[in-house]
Amino acid sequence: MSYFKNVSKIQFEGAGSKNPLAFKHYNENEVVNGKTMKEHLRFAVAYWHTLTMDGSDPFGKSVMVRPWETVSGLDLAKTRVEVNFEFLEKLGAPYYCFHDRDIAPEGSSLKETNENLDVIVGKLKEGMKQTGVKLLWNTANMFSNPRFVHGAATTSNADVFAYAAAQVKKGLETAVELGSENYVFWGGREGYESLLNTDMGLELDNLARFFNMAIDYAKEIGYTGQFLIEPKPKEPTTHQYDFDAATTIAFLQKYNLDKHFKLNLEANHATLAGHTFEHELRVARINNMLGSVDANQGDPLLGWDTDEFPTDIYSVTLAMYEILENGGIGSGGVNFDAKVRRGSFAPEDLFYSHIAGMDTFAKGLKVASKLIEDKFFENLLAERYASFKTGIGADIVAGKANFKTLEAYALAQTGEIQNKSNHLELTKAQINEYLYNTK
Amino acid sequence: MSYFKNVSKIQFEGAGSKNPLAFKHYNENEVVNGKTMKEHLRFAVAYWHTLTMDGSDPFGKSVMVRPWETVSGLDLAKTRVEVNFEFLEKLGAPYYCFHDRDIAPEGSSLKETNENLDVIVGKLKEGMKQTGVKLLWNTANMFSNPRFVHGAATTSNADVFAYAAAQVKKGLETAVELGSENYVFWGGREGYESLLNTDMGLELDNLARFFNMAIDYAKEIGYTGQFLIEPKPKEPTTHQYDFDAATTIAFLQKYNLDKHFKLNLEANHATLAGHTFEHELRVARINNMLGSVDANQGDPLLGWDTDEFPTDIYSVTLAMYEILENGGIGSGGVNFDAKVRRGSFAPEDLFYSHIAGMDTFAKGLKVASKLIEDKFFENLLAERYASFKTGIGADIVAGKANFKTLEAYALAQTGEIQNKSNHLELTKAQINEYLYNTK
Amino acid sequence: MSYFKNVSKIQFEGAGSKNPLAFKHYNENEVVNGKTMKEHLRFAVAYWHTLTMDGSDPFGKSVMVRPWETVSGLDLAKTRVEVNFEFLEKLGAPYYCFHDRDIAPEGSSLKETNENLDVIVGKLKEGMKQTGVKLLWNTANMFSNPRFVHGAATTSNADVFAYAAAQVKKGLETAVELGSENYVFWGGREGYESLLNTDMGLELDNLARFFNMAIDYAKEIGYTGQFLIEPKPKEPTTHQYDFDAATTIAFLQKYNLDKHFKLNLEANHATLAGHTFEHELRVARINNMLGSVDANQGDPLLGWDTDEFPTDIYSVTLAMYEILENGGIGSGGVNFDAKVRRGSFAPEDLFYSHIAGMDTFAKGLKVASKLIEDKFFENLLAERYASFKTGIGADIVAGKANFKTLEAYALAQTGEIQNKSNHLELTKAQINEYLYNTK
Amino acid sequence: MSYFKNVSKIQFEGAGSKNPLAFKHYNENEVVNGKTMKEHLRFAVAYWHTLTMDGSDPFGKSVMVRPWETVSGLDLAKTRVEVNFEFLEKLGAPYYCFHDRDIAPEGSSLKETNENLDVIVGKLKEGMKQTGVKLLWNTANMFSNPRFVHGAATTSNADVFAYAAAQVKKGLETAVELGSENYVFWGGREGYESLLNTDMGLELDNLARFFNMAIDYAKEIGYTGQFLIEPKPKEPTTHQYDFDAATTIAFLQKYNLDKHFKLNLEANHATLAGHTFEHELRVARINNMLGSVDANQGDPLLGWDTDEFPTDIYSVTLAMYEILENGGIGSGGVNFDAKVRRGSFAPEDLFYSHIAGMDTFAKGLKVASKLIEDKFFENLLAERYASFKTGIGADIVAGKANFKTLEAYALAQTGEIQNKSNHLELTKAQINEYLYNTK
Repeated sequence: MSYFKNVSKIQFEGAGSKNPLAFKHYNENEVVNGKTMKEHLRFAVAYWHTLTMDGSDPFGKSVMVRPWETVSGLDLAKTRVEVNFEFLEKLGAPYYCFHDRDIAPEGSSLKETNENLDVIVGKLKEGMKQTGVKLLWNTANMFSNPRFVHGAATTSNADVFAYAAAQVKKGLETAVELGSENYVFWGGREGYESLLNTDMGLELDNLARFFNMAIDYAKEIGYTGQFLIEPKPKEPTTHQYDFDAATTIAFLQKYNLDKHFKLNLEANHATLAGHTFEHELRVARINNMLGSVDANQGDPLLGWDTDEFPTDIYSVTLAMYEILENGGIGSGGVNFDAKVRRGSFAPEDLFYSHIAGMDTFAKGLKVASKLIEDKFFENLLAERYASFKTGIGADIVAGKANFKTLEAYALAQTGEIQNKSNHLELTKAQINEYLYNTK
Repeated sequence: MSYFKNVSKIQFEGAGSKNPLAFKHYNENEVVNGKTMKEHLRFAVAYWHTLTMDGSDPFGKSVMVRPWETVSGLDLAKTRVEVNFEFLEKLGAPYYCFHDRDIAPEGSSLKETNENLDVIVGKLKEGMKQTGVKLLWNTANMFSNPRFVHGAATTSNADVFAYAAAQVKKGLETAVELGSENYVFWGGREGYESLLNTDMGLELDNLARFFNMAIDYAKEIGYTGQFLIEPKPKEPTTHQYDFDAATTIAFLQKYNLDKHFKLNLEANHATLAGHTFEHELRVARINNMLGSVDANQGDPLLGWDTDEFPTDIYSVTLAMYEILENGGIGSGGVNFDAKVRRGSFAPEDLFYSHIAGMDTFAKGLKVASKLIEDKFFENLLAERYASFKTGIGADIVAGKANFKTLEAYALAQTGEIQNKSNHLELTKAQINEYLYNTK
Repeated sequence: MSYFKNVSKIQFEGAGSKNPLAFKHYNENEVVNGKTMKEHLRFAVAYWHTLTMDGSDPFGKSVMVRPWETVSGLDLAKTRVEVNFEFLEKLGAPYYCFHDRDIAPEGSSLKETNENLDVIVGKLKEGMKQTGVKLLWNTANMFSNPRFVHGAATTSNADVFAYAAAQVKKGLETAVELGSENYVFWGGREGYESLLNTDMGLELDNLARFFNMAIDYAKEIGYTGQFLIEPKPKEPTTHQYDFDAATTIAFLQKYNLDKHFKLNLEANHATLAGHTFEHELRVARINNMLGSVDANQGDPLLGWDTDEFPTDIYSVTLAMYEILENGGIGSGGVNFDAKVRRGSFAPEDLFYSHIAGMDTFAKGLKVASKLIEDKFFENLLAERYASFKTGIGADIVAGKANFKTLEAYALAQTGEIQNKSNHLELTKAQINEYLYNTK
Repeated sequence: MSYFKNVSKIQFEGAGSKNPLAFKHYNENEVVNGKTMKEHLRFAVAYWHTLTMDGSDPFGKSVMVRPWETVSGLDLAKTRVEVNFEFLEKLGAPYYCFHDRDIAPEGSSLKETNENLDVIVGKLKEGMKQTGVKLLWNTANMFSNPRFVHGAATTSNADVFAYAAAQVKKGLETAVELGSENYVFWGGREGYESLLNTDMGLELDNLARFFNMAIDYAKEIGYTGQFLIEPKPKEPTTHQYDFDAATTIAFLQKYNLDKHFKLNLEANHATLAGHTFEHELRVARINNMLGSVDANQGDPLLGWDTDEFPTDIYSVTLAMYEILENGGIGSGGVNFDAKVRRGSFAPEDLFYSHIAGMDTFAKGLKVASKLIEDKFFENLLAERYASFKTGIGADIVAGKANFKTLEAYALAQTGEIQNKSNHLELTKAQINEYLYNTK
């Protein structure tokens, strides 16, 4: 049965194409910077935004037109599995991602909930085998159910902590079962609404305990996928503990967890934290923590997570530059944690939007690759930091200088120190030319 | 000679006083929570905002009326030393703080600059001896001079790094000479204007090298004051490396510097980073990193550092609560990194504003102390987190639980987990009553 | 039948009371500034936040514990009417407010929807007669139903415009039936998600047409309540046309609608627009547009409408000052457009939170009244602007000056113009004393 | 004498050029949409950012390298006039703009200040005659001098009001003398630092009085250029009265000044007000108020006016679309109210940056023109709002409908109203293709 009868498999038609259901830039087998686009980009579709997101917002009800929403409960969950694979195959995305509660409904008990999961996981496994689609990552939704009102691993209620542990235990088993390449933690309620009633010390200690249990259990069951933490500064909480890349790294270092985790970085979460996406990627890269990306974009004038599909070529090009400089995204991928706007409620918008995002990333990949091929940034930085390659600069970097030798050096200089202009505006203009001219 | 002839020593007159040049709440010898107010609060006056700030802003020129600005250069610097001590004595603040360039003008060479410093440091030492006023901390201004256009310890120019090293070397020697209780690093230009031309990895490595040299040199000359880093997210840079408390801690941990530093936290910097002041203090406290505070307040609707005098009793009370829970501020203090508004250009505004800030902190201290005496937060947290004191919760905290035992526990539960309401609105109303009723 | 069995009528017990279910400041018959507190404050309870808000957010499901939610549809609507009056009576609030869809469920057709409304309106009328509670304002919910996905009066679909017209027509009839003292327009979807597909000119023309039709119909049916527009800058839309007070006034002036409307101003909406609450009230006041207030508060560090209960005594005091200076709030009132936090899910939190808000407003009223009684601001402004009372200043104000006379005056001056310091920090300190000391 | 010896006249070399001192897109005589690029864009150079901006910021001193800054006072002012014309001629910009205090230093009295102005205005007039360069607009700097600490036309000091009047009187005379095509009002200090000591009503009345005097005097001396107001929400003030386009329009309408003014809209000011640049332009356009633009861009993550050169092709394309739809910019132009970054301190950066901006606007013009040629937005809007062209929609627009006819229409409909998806993501992807493919 087909749920998108009017849509054929999306093909690459190139830049001139007027067909909204064709790629203009994403040609999965085209080789860029030594690998195929498919290998570079490892696109994933988010189950929640594609299959279960209904377009409701704090001021309005469901608006999405989804013809397959004719049944409910476990039956609907099964139908969505079919829609998922049809969508993935037609789109040509090699991966998908999900939260446990996206794929199967909760039952009246944890046992029943897990049984529901088992049914759907079986169906997903079968679909993956048939289609070749793979699971980029799975995670646990520990924020929607009322029991998590005060948090999950950072709850004030030990029973909830236990429940969350059971949920992640099942999630890790699911990861093994489906060969998930990563397992993600996003702490939607791990933070505080008000510091007035929060024991931050205890909550963070408990979070570390929780992560250690996850590491132990993964080892026990032989799960070897990469653990990822996804930072977000706030929303739904007033303050989320994994505020941004640096804050998350601080936490991991404090509790000696940094060897076990990398980061799953989202563009819109960066915006909410007051950073650019490329900043967050750079912080992760220089800390060897760049694990995966949640590809979307926010509106910098809005203060909430809009999760728009990424179409800003500036941001995406710089993101792809960081990924290429990182030597690729490893076991991670480019997951569209992005949702169609409320006004884009037609089923075909799911295709339009993913094509928009994939094409932007493909274009960004090409531009970033060209920048690297031309050694654009490499040369710029080499010239800018040249003084650290010789003389006193080399001594500093080599650890051969100290305050006394440096003072002696400084006192011996005559005349004012000469700095060089960055010509930043020229750099920006040159990058614009790359954007316009890279084919 | 007196520079504030119309102002006598500020006295405590209590809450009913209508005298604008009297304290209503700050009674330095009054004992609160086991110590005198003076011992708790350790107030410091910022040399830059009090002696050298001229009221200019990016759109306007100097407006401040400062009758003592009749000479220039080193003569002016000497006059300001006199003004400083008269101001401190009349205000009754036991400490002051300065950047090297606040106190003495730069000369035509580093050597001459240091000689200027020596003259003024000598004069300060003398004044300190005469008045009993002490130096809370000193620091180096490595952001105003054009040579720091691309940073100081994170510059792209090795000559500038060397100069900065020489400057901090002198700063540490000054700290020894004046018995400075702390030495502060605020990296005004340590960050980037654009990631497009920045080698973040090299710059942060260099910053760590710089800090290690400072540690080594302090040891060498026997300086035993506390090193403090002052986080700020941005301004003047687009991104400052010491973005907030957590980011700074991540950096210190990575380079094994965390044992050598604590944090000097500023209210307005917290606001700019998207945090409350109390959040930053809490993060520092639970990491044993709370070193000192820069007391001021920002306007949450403005995106730059307004450095207003702190008069928000909510924020100050919660700050004092964190300090009391920390067992005090240690060798740090409450430094008014705050400037009179451009429209408050009269000399007496320097007193009005400091009195406003000191009274607010004194009131906040009393309220926080009463909250502690009444075990207000203690009881609230004890009840909220009670489940971690017994049973499965105690097992979790004790490290006796794992995902399998917790799953077994969760599966054995019947019925939905019961959470308790926080009654946050009631808590806020109760805190209001403390604010209104604490005398 | 009682839905709040554990709660008795809330009484005034005064500042010392430890009873969380008592007023500390709101004593409805106490006379302040020539009127009783009840007459000044005209408190209203918001039906939506009190009766239908379930605590869900974009990341989580309903959490509120509401024992009366045992039936559904029209039966539930009837039950809520009973809860409403019990709550209002126990709280002692003289007014309530509602959207049409808060009080009655939509049917399968507009006709059926209106019939549902008729049933509930009848029941409300009866309850109002029995309790003496009055309707401060009603409004139409033209944002939740999927039909309003592209707006209501500013929709791109004429059928939706017609539907919206029918809905407001019914709303005006309801207002007549229940004696509503005001009728409110909040344009939740009246704006745009993206300018890329928006005909702003047509949409605003249509909005004006819609308002004119409302005026005509009100006249036709003899509805004499005050029309109010409630500005909000964004959320759910990217841009809402009634961005803030000034923008709304510009619209009303352009279409000659300004004589027919006043503004209903909300604190949290002000924050989202980059303004203080007192700013919005002042703008309305000097334009004779201050109609009513939606009392709540936002978190300035969060970018969405948190609708917290107002407990910030600074903001509330300045709001009450504006209202008193306006000669009162007229036919408007202080409506708690505020919701208990997600973590405050117990039924009694509805009382705690309203008491917190009412007490803060009562305290704010007393402080503002004392400031007026003492001519605090009056004297401050009289002194500050004294130069416009005589001489050249008086000429300017009287329209007797022009550029030539003013230039002649300026050329004739010798020496630099003398300005006076504002002493703003002193003013803030003085206001703090009013907050601490007003009983 | 040449001040930019290493720079020849900037030529158009087209997209492939690697020459940083060549235009890639701006070909002044190329005809686009029926006019030459030069006629469309009317580029202007800002005197302040080009000739007097020294790179200082609140935390640092002057860094700009400007070889001509070898003299001071009136001599320096004369030199700058020469630099100005050399720069304009080499750049090929047909216009420039200035504040009175940019071009000539203040003297020790108003009389002397005006005499200084006369000298420089004479020199400018001569240069304009020789080069053919024209003055797009002039304005008065009524924010830098300490006398304006409390405002200019909205000051609390009548003497300052008089001084400001004299200054604008002179400015209008200068406009006549130099044939300035517009006269701009930007109220840098026209607003408040704190509402606590501000009589907003009086201040706004005075502002209107001031504008009326300006209108009268312009009429008297026969100045027929366009009056422009430049909105900005804040900075240096906490709140600036001309907050944004809508607020300014509200003010102008209230005082019946709207026929005499148009708006000069700046991209970065829009960002600070929480709007996009295209939003502000649209608001002005539909109110027939689009007068001129200050071309720059801000950093949406920073809360102050960064005045960067515009290189964001998205924003610029949409700005040019609004201008084309407006029928052009009239007597206004595209003025680069933009400054090189502090780190771009070399003289050649003045060229690099202006070329970056001009090329971006030229590219944006071409893309916008292509979008119009293809009726991209026209068709999209025609389809979206089709329902207002016939039937009930046409009745609504024609004023033939009322609440009763519309209710009758709505009641007569069967089934739920059908809306159409916007396909916004597709629209964004299509616009991206225009950006990539327009030559």
